[in-house]
Amino acid sequence: MMTEPTKYLLDENAIPAAWYNLQADLPSPPPPVLHPGTLQPVGPDDLAPLFPMALIGQEVSTEREIEIPAPVRDAYRAWRPTPLYRARRLEQALDTPARIYYKYEGVSPTGSHKPNTAVAQAFYNKEAGVARLATETGAGQWGSSLAYAAALFGLEVKVYMVRVSFDQKPYRKAMMETYGATCIASPSEETNAGRAVLAEHPDSTGSLGIAIGEAVEDAATREDTKYSLGSVLNHVLMHQSVIGREALAQFELANDYPDIIVGCTGGGSNFSGIAFPFIGEKLRGGRDVRVVAVEPAACPSLTRGRYAYDFGDTANLTPLVKMHTLGSAFVPSGFHAGGLRYHGMAPLVSHCVELDLVEPTAYTQIECFEAGVLFSRAESIIPAPEANHAVKGAVVEALRCKEEGVSRAILFNLCGHGHFDMQAYTDYFAGNLAVEHYDESEVAMALAGLPAVA
Amino acid sequence: MMTEPTKYLLDENAIPAAWYNLQADLPSPPPPVLHPGTLQPVGPDDLAPLFPMALIGQEVSTEREIEIPAPVRDAYRAWRPTPLYRARRLEQALDTPARIYYKYEGVSPTGSHKPNTAVAQAFYNKEAGVARLATETGAGQWGSSLAYAAALFGLEVKVYMVRVSFDQKPYRKAMMETYGATCIASPSEETNAGRAVLAEHPDSTGSLGIAIGEAVEDAATREDTKYSLGSVLNHVLMHQSVIGREALAQFELANDYPDIIVGCTGGGSNFSGIAFPFIGEKLRGGRDVRVVAVEPAACPSLTRGRYAYDFGDTANLTPLVKMHTLGSAFVPSGFHAGGLRYHGMAPLVSHCVELDLVEPTAYTQIECFEAGVLFSRAESIIPAPEANHAVKGAVVEALRCKEEGVSRAILFNLCGHGHFDMQAYTDYFAGNLAVEHYDESEVAMALAGLPAVA
Repeated sequence: MMTEPTKYLLDENAIPAAWYNLQADLPSPPPPVLHPGTLQPVGPDDLAPLFPMALIGQEVSTEREIEIPAPVRDAYRAWRPTPLYRARRLEQALDTPARIYYKYEGVSPTGSHKPNTAVAQAFYNKEAGVARLATETGAGQWGSSLAYAAALFGLEVKVYMVRVSFDQKPYRKAMMETYGATCIASPSEETNAGRAVLAEHPDSTGSLGIAIGEAVEDAATREDTKYSLGSVLNHVLMHQSVIGREALAQFELANDYPDIIVGCTGGGSNFSGIAFPFIGEKLRGGRDVRVVAVEPAACPSLTRGRYAYDFGDTANLTPLVKMHTLGSAFVPSGFHAGGLRYHGMAPLVSHCVELDLVEPTAYTQIECFEAGVLFSRAESIIPAPEANHAVKGAVVEALRCKEEGVSRAILFNLCGHGHFDMQAYTDYFAGNLAVEHYDESEVAMALAGLPAVA
Repeated sequence: MMTEPTKYLLDENAIPAAWYNLQADLPSPPPPVLHPGTLQPVGPDDLAPLFPMALIGQEVSTEREIEIPAPVRDAYRAWRPTPLYRARRLEQALDTPARIYYKYEGVSPTGSHKPNTAVAQAFYNKEAGVARLATETGAGQWGSSLAYAAALFGLEVKVYMVRVSFDQKPYRKAMMETYGATCIASPSEETNAGRAVLAEHPDSTGSLGIAIGEAVEDAATREDTKYSLGSVLNHVLMHQSVIGREALAQFELANDYPDIIVGCTGGGSNFSGIAFPFIGEKLRGGRDVRVVAVEPAACPSLTRGRYAYDFGDTANLTPLVKMHTLGSAFVPSGFHAGGLRYHGMAPLVSHCVELDLVEPTAYTQIECFEAGVLFSRAESIIPAPEANHAVKGAVVEALRCKEEGVSRAILFNLCGHGHFDMQAYTDYFAGNLAVEHYDESEVAMALAGLPAVA
């Protein structure tokens, strides 16, 4: 019974020495980011008001490896390397010949993968002499992670939190305050963007788009402040590569290699973190691997969106990026996986889908919670609603192995625990979880408004 | 910067093979448990309606080691061995020459040390053919841990949760349901004990004493059901010894040994878990160690209670145990560390205090939250309100090292994270945390009601 391990652990000296940059190995580069006015590729100067130069450099770098600075690696040691689990009890529950593995990022101080980039961003901003960061947060995972990272490096943080989550999830705000950050509801009275919304809709519950607008305005109008984003951008995805790099080393310990990798996609950062290092191996002539991106049926940018230039935010303040999008004017319905409610997708993930390196699929939240409860009872960890999408994807592949009588190795990223989202489980058990609304015509309208770029 | 480790990890093959039983090494045995009617020592038959024989045997055993059954060790592998951290950033923040270490039990599926005994209790009940367990829970840590353990072994669980917490902490109930348990508010309409209370006080917010009464009645009146308790009893404390046994091995890795061990005490189980294996070493001629038990100033059984025979519950349904008690009729004020709101203390911990093996001390909740926030910002983990008492105790010792210019090794047990208790932090930051009420005369009255036992 004790012969085969449940989890594969690495010593903290095995924390990767460098991040992996997929851009070095892609057969073609992703389309450039465009200035919305000139429709010309943006340069470093366009981004300088918002980000420190080190991060702008990483955004466009094609170096394969970028060294992780010693203070960032040192901070990672608080929770990294994270464990790779073999889901033996889940395999038993499914009666499948599949070998299921999951990388568990919920052991981080804030309970998800977000600190992997938060710590790096705080470090580079501190190095550049920045005193203060502004950011937005939806459900609060990102805001609390940046608050934690800023505490390590002595930076101030201001978080604009979408009003509806601010009211519904007071524990996330408490977490940010415990780490010393300031968190206010968005729309707020503290920015022009916020005041403009409140003037028209005094009872606005906010949106990620509005909150981004407030945080960007805050950073752009204050000399001591930069802006920080928790997903989508190339440098953010690259910081998450520590997940997959550790997994590669852990599969060596397990004497195995994944046939299939599954991750959930919202902005794309946890998915890229686990998948890109394996895709890189494949592109450099290593073993083949099927990579499955699971998105919510109510916000299916990869499976039902258009690959086109669009704005990253609802207020259309950002540069134009080419990505799978449902249109920046599209507002997804209020399902429980708040971290996956984004109209677009990380440009690098979209590019990989176009190159047939990634296979997208979508599931409804009820199927995902069903898989999550099955997983909890077998494996003990209660996943975040976002992570339940990855669990569902892995269960589908494991059952396919059973049907076909084939043993494949399936790796998925359990990107966070659900301790701050238990209301979703209560709703699920009470039968109050809605079948999400996805309206083809709303998306068609939003897509009709896309900027005209050749 | 990377030379000295932040955490000491053990392979899962290093999960202890046996629990450690302090009773084997004590210079004198603890006073016997008495039947409240006859005042004679209770025998196994008296306890048989509530517990399976294997646990009753462990309760009175004086064997030094009791082998951990393979399925229990196998279940432990989901999160054990837990990490031992060296708190380098906290040492820096305190500018102390002390070497501070903490054992982190918050990595368990429910976020505290409670599953260490929950898994064992579920296993032995399953082995004895029990189909269903009844238990009580206050804030929910214990109820969710037993729910988790029962899911592993296919047992039904009914949890009677104190009404006030049931209403205030819906996330804990959701967690129990996710693991498949049933959780109802106590007092309930489902037991005589509950109905009797509701008849007199329809709006009763409940108490741990009432909930224990309901769970005991449930177990005693159903053939298929036994009762399960999360602290206080000898076998529960023994199951927690995996904490200290792992720490002993981890200190060998660290090439160090604690001069001082600090734990928080409510019922006594997490404290015993870290301390007893080290006390055992000392009693068998090994290294000396100071052991500090930190209790809340609002419920100071060890520092201000009487060492006397008393009931374990408010309803006086249990046998009589000799312990430090504030009187079973004493109701502590509603401070935030719900896990420490118990009128008595584990008899084995009380006995150790009488033998001068343990040094008790008490702090107010505001001092403890202050220490917890300092800890969070330095070490990244937000402690549970209970664990903040241990943090405070460790900080006091570390500052004493600084004053005296001496480097000592301090080990404390970080028995759980605070993710389900963030309201307490909000109250702390808002200045709404009350200075707890402790009324000497209420305790005097409760103590006057103690049963008359020679």
